[in-house]
Amino acid sequence: MNIKDKILERLINNKGMRISGEQLASELCVSRTAIWKHIKVLRDEGYMIDSSTNLGYSLIETPDRLTPGEIKAGLKTKVIGKEIKYFKETESTNIVAHEIAGSVDEGTIVIAEAQTAGRGRLGRKWISPEGGIWLSIILKPKIQPSHAPRITLLAGVCVARTIRSLGLPAKIKWPNDILINGKKVCGILTEIRAEADLIDYLIVGIGIDANVDTESFPDDIRDSSTSLKKEKRAKINRAGFVRKLLEEFDELYLKFQDEGFKSILEEWRNMSATIGEWVKITTQAHSIYGEAIGVDNEGALILETSDGHLEKIVSGSCEHLRRT
Amino acid sequence: MNIKDKILERLINNKGMRISGEQLASELCVSRTAIWKHIKVLRDEGYMIDSSTNLGYSLIETPDRLTPGEIKAGLKTKVIGKEIKYFKETESTNIVAHEIAGSVDEGTIVIAEAQTAGRGRLGRKWISPEGGIWLSIILKPKIQPSHAPRITLLAGVCVARTIRSLGLPAKIKWPNDILINGKKVCGILTEIRAEADLIDYLIVGIGIDANVDTESFPDDIRDSSTSLKKEKRAKINRAGFVRKLLEEFDELYLKFQDEGFKSILEEWRNMSATIGEWVKITTQAHSIYGEAIGVDNEGALILETSDGHLEKIVSGSCEHLRRT
Repeated sequence: MNIKDKILERLINNKGMRISGEQLASELCVSRTAIWKHIKVLRDEGYMIDSSTNLGYSLIETPDRLTPGEIKAGLKTKVIGKEIKYFKETESTNIVAHEIAGSVDEGTIVIAEAQTAGRGRLGRKWISPEGGIWLSIILKPKIQPSHAPRITLLAGVCVARTIRSLGLPAKIKWPNDILINGKKVCGILTEIRAEADLIDYLIVGIGIDANVDTESFPDDIRDSSTSLKKEKRAKINRAGFVRKLLEEFDELYLKFQDEGFKSILEEWRNMSATIGEWVKITTQAHSIYGEAIGVDNEGALILETSDGHLEKIVSGSCEHLRRT
Repeated sequence: MNIKDKILERLINNKGMRISGEQLASELCVSRTAIWKHIKVLRDEGYMIDSSTNLGYSLIETPDRLTPGEIKAGLKTKVIGKEIKYFKETESTNIVAHEIAGSVDEGTIVIAEAQTAGRGRLGRKWISPEGGIWLSIILKPKIQPSHAPRITLLAGVCVARTIRSLGLPAKIKWPNDILINGKKVCGILTEIRAEADLIDYLIVGIGIDANVDTESFPDDIRDSSTSLKKEKRAKINRAGFVRKLLEEFDELYLKFQDEGFKSILEEWRNMSATIGEWVKITTQAHSIYGEAIGVDNEGALILETSDGHLEKIVSGSCEHLRRT
């Protein structure tokens, strides 16, 4: 953590109280002039920081930003988010993640206030205005490429847990959407680079319509989308949400490595909006209708078609159908 | 194909005869001055081209180069090698291939006379001096990441076929080495970029010790390595070898897409040096000893351990053991 982030962490942890420049300078082993310069930069970034000559600095209000300082203040993780690359705007956090993945540690995060070319699954566009949470997590698990879908399911559980901590009834639609009351609030795009039989790195892209106005979305997705703000009827604290999400991810990812996938799959199944539903699956080749009866250990959807035949779906688009 | 390559193709196809500058200019719809300039560039590249004012140009000798012009002259493929990116020297053809894969057509080749940072499987170094064949093929098959090892096996069959066409007894060691008389002459490194359940692109890196002096290799691999030159006791025509390899690849890759993997796997099994051998498999976690009894439809090695237990090996290093 750099000096500016450390100052911010102390201001956040002491919100409502004052810390003197002398104390900050002494604790961080820098000059009072350096402290003063960093405070100025923080003010330029939108932090309202009161100062008085004798009493020191006090944080009045933080901007709604996802800066590393905001996220790291109080973050309790072992691997995830130790390094955070922040952008006010970027093409796509997954693209940046691909560019840097070879040279950064596992757990590094790329996060942006807005994406200009956000991507969804199968090359689809992903609308990513300010107010949302657009982040990518770089992982280097020693697993086969065919096990990558497990990380998508793991990420879905983490997002659903975090949304449920806000008191909202999040469920997971196979393979990678998070729904609230049947409407999509989050998508997950897992991408890998691998040798034929071993992953070099894996990127989990997570896009959450947090404080986004879904009313401004295009016709074809407006009615099927929602946001955390809309469901809570109030803006959420995005930095706090990200912190919680990273902590959930840190816990489950370490559990995945220590204990395997079994209990995570169990939790996924319990949070699933798809199991038990009649669905239409569209693959490259054709469409299949049936009842989703389960998800196997590889993350594939198990479908029972109307003639009682079982189908294993590894990849495809899933649509929940109303029974007629 | 650019003008220079077209001129070269005509010179190669008419080797021993003369073509006038006027004829070339007329056939290629450019000026005679343009022809003269391209001839000069070809000479700078090492082609010995005789010219006489009245009789025209005649190709006397081609350099031992893997330029696009050399490879494309007479190349009969539908997909593979329609576009060739050539380097006298590059870090690694797989690295270049990763950089360009998003913006080029399937079948594009990256080829280099030498690599400064050639890579083998599992992050190992791959020695790549001049005289070898170092090339990467960019593919965009619509398959799951777990099926990528099939392309490694397919590539092994193509390389073995091409080496056998020189009259040398090439065999394939699981998963990706080509042996001649038990010594390694080629390695294959397949890498993918993918969504969790669908490949974006796949790169097949093929490194062949063609006209390489393996005596100059480091101690630890010298005795287990050989070259085509050493086995043939003469330098091989590298461009011709690459052309044949690309044609084999084109044929098998189209067959793979049209008819599936079955007959290719059958051919792989027939060329296998591993099936029937006692082997030691080293994975990340542990070593396993047993008899290699087969390779399954996913490219995994099936091992019968000494207690009669069957093990399926998806990833690992394979060492052939002498029975004691």
